[in-house]
Amino acid sequence: MQKPSIPQGTRDFGPAQVARRQHIFNVIRRTFEQFGFAPLETPTLENLSVLTGKYGDEGDQLLFKVLNSGNFLVKERKGETTPTVTADDLEAGPKAVLPKIAEKGLRYDLTVPFARYVAMNRGTLTFPFKRYQMQPVWRADRPQRGRYREFYQCDADVVGTDSLLCEAEIVLMMSQVLHQLGLYDFTIKINHRGVLRNIYQALGGEGQETDLFVAIDKLDKIGREGVSNELLGKGFTQPTIDTLFELLSVEGNFEEKLERLLAGFATSGVEPDGFAEGKSLAEQGESPLSGYRGLAELGEVRALLQASGFNQFDRLEFDPTLARGLSYYTGCIFEVKINNVQMGSVSGGGRYDNLTGSFGLPGVSGVGFSFGVDRLYDCLESLDLFKPTGETPTRCLITNFDGPTLPAALGLLAQLRAAGLPSELYPDTVKLQKQFKYADAKGIPLVIIMGPEELSQGIVKIKILASGEEKTLPIGEVVSALTHD
Amino acid sequence: MQKPSIPQGTRDFGPAQVARRQHIFNVIRRTFEQFGFAPLETPTLENLSVLTGKYGDEGDQLLFKVLNSGNFLVKERKGETTPTVTADDLEAGPKAVLPKIAEKGLRYDLTVPFARYVAMNRGTLTFPFKRYQMQPVWRADRPQRGRYREFYQCDADVVGTDSLLCEAEIVLMMSQVLHQLGLYDFTIKINHRGVLRNIYQALGGEGQETDLFVAIDKLDKIGREGVSNELLGKGFTQPTIDTLFELLSVEGNFEEKLERLLAGFATSGVEPDGFAEGKSLAEQGESPLSGYRGLAELGEVRALLQASGFNQFDRLEFDPTLARGLSYYTGCIFEVKINNVQMGSVSGGGRYDNLTGSFGLPGVSGVGFSFGVDRLYDCLESLDLFKPTGETPTRCLITNFDGPTLPAALGLLAQLRAAGLPSELYPDTVKLQKQFKYADAKGIPLVIIMGPEELSQGIVKIKILASGEEKTLPIGEVVSALTHD
Repeated sequence: MQKPSIPQGTRDFGPAQVARRQHIFNVIRRTFEQFGFAPLETPTLENLSVLTGKYGDEGDQLLFKVLNSGNFLVKERKGETTPTVTADDLEAGPKAVLPKIAEKGLRYDLTVPFARYVAMNRGTLTFPFKRYQMQPVWRADRPQRGRYREFYQCDADVVGTDSLLCEAEIVLMMSQVLHQLGLYDFTIKINHRGVLRNIYQALGGEGQETDLFVAIDKLDKIGREGVSNELLGKGFTQPTIDTLFELLSVEGNFEEKLERLLAGFATSGVEPDGFAEGKSLAEQGESPLSGYRGLAELGEVRALLQASGFNQFDRLEFDPTLARGLSYYTGCIFEVKINNVQMGSVSGGGRYDNLTGSFGLPGVSGVGFSFGVDRLYDCLESLDLFKPTGETPTRCLITNFDGPTLPAALGLLAQLRAAGLPSELYPDTVKLQKQFKYADAKGIPLVIIMGPEELSQGIVKIKILASGEEKTLPIGEVVSALTHD
Repeated sequence: MQKPSIPQGTRDFGPAQVARRQHIFNVIRRTFEQFGFAPLETPTLENLSVLTGKYGDEGDQLLFKVLNSGNFLVKERKGETTPTVTADDLEAGPKAVLPKIAEKGLRYDLTVPFARYVAMNRGTLTFPFKRYQMQPVWRADRPQRGRYREFYQCDADVVGTDSLLCEAEIVLMMSQVLHQLGLYDFTIKINHRGVLRNIYQALGGEGQETDLFVAIDKLDKIGREGVSNELLGKGFTQPTIDTLFELLSVEGNFEEKLERLLAGFATSGVEPDGFAEGKSLAEQGESPLSGYRGLAELGEVRALLQASGFNQFDRLEFDPTLARGLSYYTGCIFEVKINNVQMGSVSGGGRYDNLTGSFGLPGVSGVGFSFGVDRLYDCLESLDLFKPTGETPTRCLITNFDGPTLPAALGLLAQLRAAGLPSELYPDTVKLQKQFKYADAKGIPLVIIMGPEELSQGIVKIKILASGEEKTLPIGEVVSALTHD
C-alpha cells in the first residue's frame, strides 16, 4: 500500500488556512479595484515558446515543463510515424531532448503572461490598460523558508502611460494593503534605475553594468566587504569602489538624500543633463535614462504622494542601494520589507519601458508591482496577527434526535440558512456527547438542542460553547435571536 | 518575431469574464458555506503515484505529466551519474520512458486529491468531514464545445457518515445555486446504483455489469437502438434487452416510478431482501447494495426533502437510466441538466463507499457532488443571463488638467476611494475628448470634470455617460452625493 504524499515545496491548505489566505486576497483585491485595476486570468499552461528566454538561463532551468500528451516519443504525419527522440538526442543531453517532448510549461510569473496577453489583444484593449492578476506560479527552486515551488503572486500593472501618478499610486496601494492587514511596521524602499546608472557612470565603468547591479543587490546579504570583494574580482578598482560606497551611503531624509546625490554626481564627474541644470520634468520632456532624471522623478513621486494626503513618509525610504537584480526595470523601483520579521521582501516592482517587445509589440511602457501572498501569510502568522478561525464556516449545529423531531429540525435548519446563518444538522442519531464533541472540535460556536421534550414545549435550548451559557427560547424566536446578535 | 499564442483548450479571461466567473464562484461558495462545508485547497502538482490508476486507462492517458526538474536524463547518487533513459527504453516506448523522466502530474479532478488529503490527515480530522474545493483541473482531452483542457471544478463532499440527509442536502444545494444564478429551468436526475444492479440481476447477467452501465450511460446520445446494438454485440440476448427497456422505461411521477420498479423487480425474478418485504431503512440496518434498498433510499431522500421545505419536485426526476459511467459510486447518483440549452450536465455526483481505500484508509464512505463552472458560464451566456459588466471596476473617472488643479484632483480621488468608490484620475494631461473616450470604452459610468474654471468656483461637473446628464456640485458635496446615490 502506497503512503500518499505531496511533491516537495507544495502545500495543502486546510479550512482555517484557506480562510486566512482568502482574507489576504480580499484585502489586496479590494485595494486593486479601488484604484481602478481590472482582473485578468491567464492559463496555467503556456507555450514554452512564450516562457523560454524571458527569465535568464537560471529561470529557464526553473521552469516546470509539461510532457506532450499522447505518445510523446513519436510524431504522426500523413499516417506515418517518426520517432521524436533519437538515441543521438539522448547522447546529446536534455537540451536536445526537451524541445522534442515538451511544448508547454507552467506559468513562472504573472508578468510574461500579461505581456503575452497585451500583445495578443492589442487591437481591442483600451490604453492605459490597468490590470491585476492573482494566481499561482511555479518554480522548480530549492524549497526553503518563505520559498515554495507553487506560490501565489498578486500583480497590478498599468501599461500605456509614462505618468508618475502610477508610481505614486503603487506606494499608496502598498501602504493601504499593509495597514488593512494590520502590518503597520514596514519600510517601502524606493530607488530609480537612472540613479544606479549614474552611479555606474561615476565609476567610469564600461560594459559591466550588470555585474555592478548584481553585486549591489547582495549588499543586504553579504555586506559591504562581500560586495567589495566581488567587485574587485570583476576588475573594479579600489578607488572606484570607494566612490561607489560614498554615493550609496548618502544619509538624511528623502529630500536630503536627493540633494546630496545630486551634488555627489556633479563632483564625481557624471555628465550633466537638463535635470542637473534644474529643469523640471515637464520642461525636459523625454530624455534618456539618467540619474539626474531619476532624482527629479523621485522628487515628483514624493510631491504627488504629499498631494494625495499620504502621511507615511517615515515608512518611505529612498535607498540608492536598491537594485532589484537583473530585472527589466528602467525607472522607479520599489521593494517592501516588514520590520522585525525574518522574511524577504513581501512586495516589489518598478517601471519598465519595453514589456511586450519580445512579442512583437515594442514601445509599450508601464509600471507594476506584486504582493507575495505566501510571505504576507508567514509574516502575519509570525506576528500572531490572524484572528482565531474555526475549521468550518458553520455558526450553528442542530443536534440530531431522529424520529418525530427530525422534520422540526429540518424546518429550523432551512430557516437559519435562509437567514444567512451557515448551519448544520448533525447527520447521524448518535449520543449528544458525540455531537457536542463534533461542534467543539470544529469550532462551531452555537449548539441548538431540540429533543422530544423541548419540541413538546415548543422551545429549544441554545448552548454557547465558548462560555457554556445556555438559553431557552421559543422555536419561533430562534432565527431572529441568532441573526440579530 | 514569434506570434504569441496560448495552448489549445486553454483560455485567457479578461476583466468582464473574470467578474462574471467570480459571480458564479461566489454563489457556489456561499451555498457550500451555508450548508457547513469548509474550504480545502490542494496543490496543482500531485505525485504521479497518487494520480495514476485512479481514472482508468483512458484517464491515465489524459493526465498531464510534468518533466522532472534539472537534468531529467541523469540520476545523481553519491557523486555518480547514471542515465535515466536508455536507448532500449526509447525502443520500448513511452510506458518505459515515462516513469524515468516524470514523477509529477497536474491535478485531474478534485476527488483523488481530497481522498489523498483525508488519508494523510486521518489523525487530525474530525469526522464527519465536510469540505468544498473550487480549483482548476487539467485533462489532455480533445477540446470541443463545453470541454476545455484547463477548467474549474467546484466539489463538496461529506465523508464519515451514511446519513441520507447528505443526499437530500445535495439536491437542496443544486437547486439553490441554480436559482441564485437565475437558471430556473433545470432537471435534477437521481438514481441509485442498487437499482441498476437489480436491473442487471433481473437480466440474469454475470460479470458484465460494467458493459451494461456503460451502454445505458449512452442512452441519451445513441438512443435505444444504439444501446440495443451495443448490448447485442456484447452477447446480451434480445429478450434480456427487452426486459431491460421495460424496467428502464417505467413512467409516472417520482413515487409511482418507485412503486412500479418495485413491482417490476418482483416479476422479473430479482431475489427479494428485507426491503422487498416492506422493512424500513432503520429496521433493515446495514445490508448489501440492492435495488430494493435503492428504492427505499430514494424514497427516504424524497421524504427528507419534503421535510426541509423543498418545493421543486417538478424539477427532480427519478431516472432509472442514469448510470454515470464507470465511476466508483455505490449509492444514490445525481446529474443536473439545464433545459433548453445544448450543453452536457452542469453538476453531478453520488455516494461512494470506499473513497480512501487506495491510500491505505479503507471504509471511509461519503457522498459528494460537483459543479462545472465553465459549463454554467456557457449556459448563462447562451441564455443571456449575465448582467452587463464593464471592463473595469472603476465607477468614477476624474479628468486630468494637470498644473494647479492636480492637488485638488488628488485630494478628491483619495476621498472617493476612502469612501469605497473605485476611482481613477486619468494619468496623463491629454485632451478631454480622449479622457471621455477612455471612460466610455472601459464602461466607467461617471466622469468628474474639475478644471481651473470649476476649481476657481469651488465646484465640479459630474457627467453621467449613459444618459449624457450633467450635474454641478460644490466640491465638498461630491463624495456624499456619489456614495449615497
